[in-house]
Amino acid sequence: MNYCSDCGEKVSLVIPAGDNRHRYVCDSCQIIHYENPKIVTGCIAEWNEKILLCKRAIEPRIGLWTLPAGFMENSETNMQGAARETAEEANAQVENMQLFCVFSIAHINQVYTMYRGDLVNGEASPGIESLETSLLKEEEIPWQALAFQVISETLKLYYKDKKQGDYETHYGDIFKQDDGTFTVNYF
Amino acid sequence: MNYCSDCGEKVSLVIPAGDNRHRYVCDSCQIIHYENPKIVTGCIAEWNEKILLCKRAIEPRIGLWTLPAGFMENSETNMQGAARETAEEANAQVENMQLFCVFSIAHINQVYTMYRGDLVNGEASPGIESLETSLLKEEEIPWQALAFQVISETLKLYYKDKKQGDYETHYGDIFKQDDGTFTVNYF
Repeated sequence: MNYCSDCGEKVSLVIPAGDNRHRYVCDSCQIIHYENPKIVTGCIAEWNEKILLCKRAIEPRIGLWTLPAGFMENSETNMQGAARETAEEANAQVENMQLFCVFSIAHINQVYTMYRGDLVNGEASPGIESLETSLLKEEEIPWQALAFQVISETLKLYYKDKKQGDYETHYGDIFKQDDGTFTVNYF
Repeated sequence: MNYCSDCGEKVSLVIPAGDNRHRYVCDSCQIIHYENPKIVTGCIAEWNEKILLCKRAIEPRIGLWTLPAGFMENSETNMQGAARETAEEANAQVENMQLFCVFSIAHINQVYTMYRGDLVNGEASPGIESLETSLLKEEEIPWQALAFQVISETLKLYYKDKKQGDYETHYGDIFKQDDGTFTVNYF
């Protein structure tokens, strides 16, 4: 951020009075521009013993597999966002959605919210951001070709719950270590 | 938003190519400025049969009661944010935190995440954003003087689960009707 989005003058990175964090503050109109984490919301769409994965057509991680998910938009609920992303990325409808997991990923300022839902009629096809969609059994999941750590953690939790026949709502934190590996804390 | 925060030139509200929503796009450098929902995170801090409430010292709803909560910051986890807000608003420490509920409030572009936790030593005192803090039993909750609908809904769920002796993680959507009243959908 270089300029004030309200008045167009220069901003400076300072700690405002009464605050304890650096914020971009306008040198002219003094407005404080807060920056906060974003929510990524998505879905495990189930059909019989299979789930829906999408092969990414866009960066980052083009060509790798993911669950349909994306940034939550203003004026929608979190669950509506998950359903919208599933429709956009896989031309798929989901129903009977339940919140399955919430992951904080502090180093990229994101919170992931992932739902489980029934894939209507088992129908899916690639949206503009996907090269391919596929309905896969557990033994067909391409664990080494998943796009993001959070997707891998979500699917591990999912199959663990599935074996127990009891799905909970999970919360966890994903941390990136200095050597590039990840650790996950579950609560 | 009137000006581009990157280059300082004017922005226009248009639907970018390949998108289906209006975004602020810079007339000069063409960068798209996305706006997304914010996360409010907070805590039900428990001490024996009581919970911690704060009387707000700031607008909106100054003088009304709330659970400690506020906007999640970059570079923290969702749970860390809930603990930080509890420390800032009530000089209180919480431990053994569990995610209790997630509420989408689409008309204000917010998602609330509320935790349950143990209030360490039962100690609390007003932070700068609170006029007063209080440890209250269920029959002492000032239901008619709560600051926000989402706080009321959170506490109703909490006492329902408490009676059953079993706390779940809940998800719900809060909608504001044209007449100013609220409806809540639970999933």
